[in-house]
Amino acid sequence: MSGAGIGSMSRRELLMMIGAAAGSSVAYRAMASLDMVPESDYKGPIKLEGDPKGASVLILGAGLAGLVAALELRKAGYKVQVLEYNQRVGGRNWTLRGGDSYTELGGFEQKCEFDPGLYLNPGPWRLPYHHNAILDYCKRLGVVLEPFNQVNYNAYLHSSKAFGGKPQRYRHIQADFNGGVAELLAKSTKQKKMDQLVTKEDREILLESLKGWGALENDYTYRMGLESSGRRGYDHDPNGGTIGKPVPSKPISIDEILKSGLWRYLVHGHIYEFQTTLFQPVGGMDMISKAFAREVGDAVRFNCKVTAIKQDGHKVTATYVDAKTGGAPTQVSADWCLCTIPASVLSQIDLDVSAPMHDAINALPYEASIKVGLQAKRRFWEQDESIYGGVTFTDLPNNMIGYPNTGYFGSGKGVLLGAYTFGPNAYEFTALSPQERVKKAIEFGAQIHPQYKDEIENGIAVGWHRVPWILGCAGAWTEEKRKQHYDNICRIDGRVLLAGEHVSYIPAWQEGAITSSLNAISRLHQRVVNG
Amino acid sequence: MSGAGIGSMSRRELLMMIGAAAGSSVAYRAMASLDMVPESDYKGPIKLEGDPKGASVLILGAGLAGLVAALELRKAGYKVQVLEYNQRVGGRNWTLRGGDSYTELGGFEQKCEFDPGLYLNPGPWRLPYHHNAILDYCKRLGVVLEPFNQVNYNAYLHSSKAFGGKPQRYRHIQADFNGGVAELLAKSTKQKKMDQLVTKEDREILLESLKGWGALENDYTYRMGLESSGRRGYDHDPNGGTIGKPVPSKPISIDEILKSGLWRYLVHGHIYEFQTTLFQPVGGMDMISKAFAREVGDAVRFNCKVTAIKQDGHKVTATYVDAKTGGAPTQVSADWCLCTIPASVLSQIDLDVSAPMHDAINALPYEASIKVGLQAKRRFWEQDESIYGGVTFTDLPNNMIGYPNTGYFGSGKGVLLGAYTFGPNAYEFTALSPQERVKKAIEFGAQIHPQYKDEIENGIAVGWHRVPWILGCAGAWTEEKRKQHYDNICRIDGRVLLAGEHVSYIPAWQEGAITSSLNAISRLHQRVVNG
Repeated sequence: MSGAGIGSMSRRELLMMIGAAAGSSVAYRAMASLDMVPESDYKGPIKLEGDPKGASVLILGAGLAGLVAALELRKAGYKVQVLEYNQRVGGRNWTLRGGDSYTELGGFEQKCEFDPGLYLNPGPWRLPYHHNAILDYCKRLGVVLEPFNQVNYNAYLHSSKAFGGKPQRYRHIQADFNGGVAELLAKSTKQKKMDQLVTKEDREILLESLKGWGALENDYTYRMGLESSGRRGYDHDPNGGTIGKPVPSKPISIDEILKSGLWRYLVHGHIYEFQTTLFQPVGGMDMISKAFAREVGDAVRFNCKVTAIKQDGHKVTATYVDAKTGGAPTQVSADWCLCTIPASVLSQIDLDVSAPMHDAINALPYEASIKVGLQAKRRFWEQDESIYGGVTFTDLPNNMIGYPNTGYFGSGKGVLLGAYTFGPNAYEFTALSPQERVKKAIEFGAQIHPQYKDEIENGIAVGWHRVPWILGCAGAWTEEKRKQHYDNICRIDGRVLLAGEHVSYIPAWQEGAITSSLNAISRLHQRVVNG
Repeated sequence: MSGAGIGSMSRRELLMMIGAAAGSSVAYRAMASLDMVPESDYKGPIKLEGDPKGASVLILGAGLAGLVAALELRKAGYKVQVLEYNQRVGGRNWTLRGGDSYTELGGFEQKCEFDPGLYLNPGPWRLPYHHNAILDYCKRLGVVLEPFNQVNYNAYLHSSKAFGGKPQRYRHIQADFNGGVAELLAKSTKQKKMDQLVTKEDREILLESLKGWGALENDYTYRMGLESSGRRGYDHDPNGGTIGKPVPSKPISIDEILKSGLWRYLVHGHIYEFQTTLFQPVGGMDMISKAFAREVGDAVRFNCKVTAIKQDGHKVTATYVDAKTGGAPTQVSADWCLCTIPASVLSQIDLDVSAPMHDAINALPYEASIKVGLQAKRRFWEQDESIYGGVTFTDLPNNMIGYPNTGYFGSGKGVLLGAYTFGPNAYEFTALSPQERVKKAIEFGAQIHPQYKDEIENGIAVGWHRVPWILGCAGAWTEEKRKQHYDNICRIDGRVLLAGEHVSYIPAWQEGAITSSLNAISRLHQRVVNG
């Protein structure tokens, strides 16, 4: 290789050379720049270089967007103050534990009665592997993560209108759908019906791939036998000794699968955000905001309900009252304001920004959503049904049952996510009292797990559209609205700019809140340093 | 409902009634007996009722089969003694850590140089959710389990003969194969080529399902755009603020996918044994055998190489020598013998059993297999490539790279499974010295991770066909051989019977060893109590 110029080297040889000379991370970055791996979008800790010359920033809201801004701006030399409506940091980064109480719009107060160590994340509950910003903050702030199991082949898919209402194991629907699709395509390929669509060369490979992937027999049919049971499971599992012989299970016909509608749920683990490996913080999602609070908690003033945000050419002034008692308004000023208050709430505040930004704030609708947590006396889903984590989906109004992805095999109690639903179902739930919502979630769940009736002992229900400080789950951009308003919601409007999941292309995700905040403070810093 | 007879009730109503009256586990068992859920094959702790009247059992081998038998037989009142070749319990339930040394056939000695806390499981490394027996023993013995991640959408599939040798993300191949298959089948369905195969009624549902499942556009094509990128990932991920707009990535054509052969690897997570949720013991697989040793370790005599097993109408006598020094043979007798010595080794021992059992033992071939563990200075697969656990597959002789499913996001060192391969590749590896095997595994792995060259600092290689006490990975039954010999290997042959993964329908799995042992001791106990 010594005499050869770079032009005659293979890309791989070039990399090996770079690797040998300059260390592995250089080699990896070279590989990335040669387009051999996808570049991540978040490039590691933000660098705000240059002197802010004593500038001050008022941050409204101590959710993740606000906390990230407080941390990074203070580190860069800004004077930072944060106003927060709640008595805690985190916003939707929130975990409910025994002893917590929560009062929703209209005054319904719920007391969480979970046993010590158990919790519900009423807001976000998962961290995708490609949400690099939040994963990096977890690492930097010492938040310990554990795997979150989204797809569980032994959980159920359930339709009240199919299979006599009997829940089906995910693995049955999954294997039989794949097998059915593979058989159909293989048959039509063999009958040369695909000849216009597939080259002759690919025909044999396609058949081979369908056979392996679909668990087809040698004649390209998907049917009862060890092939199909090797995917869907057996009536009697292979085992040891004289009783070890496996007994195959009978597949469900593709006709029945299609009519059942349960195929709808097969896709969820393939979606970029729900692919393995997902994570969750050990102990609850709010371990993240608590970690931020250790760094910047001293800059946060709690119980502040912002009523007005005014600006002139020199400063921004926010007016706030005590969130619980009201009372006399207080004012606080700064050179700049980063406002992370959700648009749903912000639209009701006296806000001094341009018409286009006002329009954007007013145009953005928020989704309705509800989560119900249910405490069970024992982990019956594990003990009776071998379901360890993951999700069961149903067409009942509770939409899903989430099994805890932690404390596996515990002999004590456990908390299920008994309902997580959006839109009309969410409104129907919240038309009831919290107590009745929990009762409903039990009623629905009992159609899948009859053990519910005896085992569920208490619960708590958070309907996001009834949470006073957000009035919805997340910003629900449509393509049309985004085209019209997104650029305006991102602008630096005089001395005010906005951040949060609603100022992102991944609404409802914490990564959206964080990257939106990082983008906003980068632009603000640019303005301050250059201006 | 009160006036209706059971005959007129729906099955579900019946269950609800049972549930209300008799508690949830009764309801669940009723549901199971009504065929609404699959029954598990292992029904919980074995019950050996009846008096063994002082009978003694000599157990040969302190792997999981032997340990389970020792535990349960002693609990049932038997006098139990175990002879073990090694200086430790567990057999293939084995974990290598820094400071351990291992000598293979031919005298090659390796010293494991891993840092504290790091390990390689050279044998079994996964526990499927339906391996109820081993999971139950883990629970009973207090072995803490954590999730094992098999499929990682961000790991690689690699062929040295495709894509210029460039590894492909699993999610790309997965999404593009599904998309390609869905598009083909949708097209031919729309062109009415499937009309013989699919009823008119199903046609529309099939199209809808293919569209959703395959991420097809409205015209049923799979192509570059937000639909396909919502599965395979983006060139620029959606993000926050002014730089948030996602940039779609370009799918690979189905033609290229088919020719690459990488579709072969898409099936692994669908296989019953590799489906979510898999587990591993925290700290290494040998936590299981260590837990057994806490219960029955006192019954085990170590360093015993069995040279003969003789029986008459009254007792069984085993002869053994010191496994290291040889020396004078010792004899030990008992009423019965449960022999868990692998058939590969047993066939070389002077064994007093019937010709059919001899034939069975001699007929059973063992698989060759090798695992190589590699210690890296840093977790570069996580830090540079966002790969958290799971497996990368390759057509290179190392076959796969397994990323540690524990200690995620650690800033210290990590141990990779650098090779896990069977058959000819395994023989080729072991034709080399252990040091050369490690070098080879690094060479192969560096074609996928160029960081290898700088980051891998030591390794250890276990070729199972060169492990003195097993001479292979696991019993490799063929259908033909099983038909001929399996019943004979399961028989109670005078006063001798066999157990282990090789006496099961799930060879190579610990569940096979345990259920084989439970089956054997049940039959033995029956004989003792009744006889």
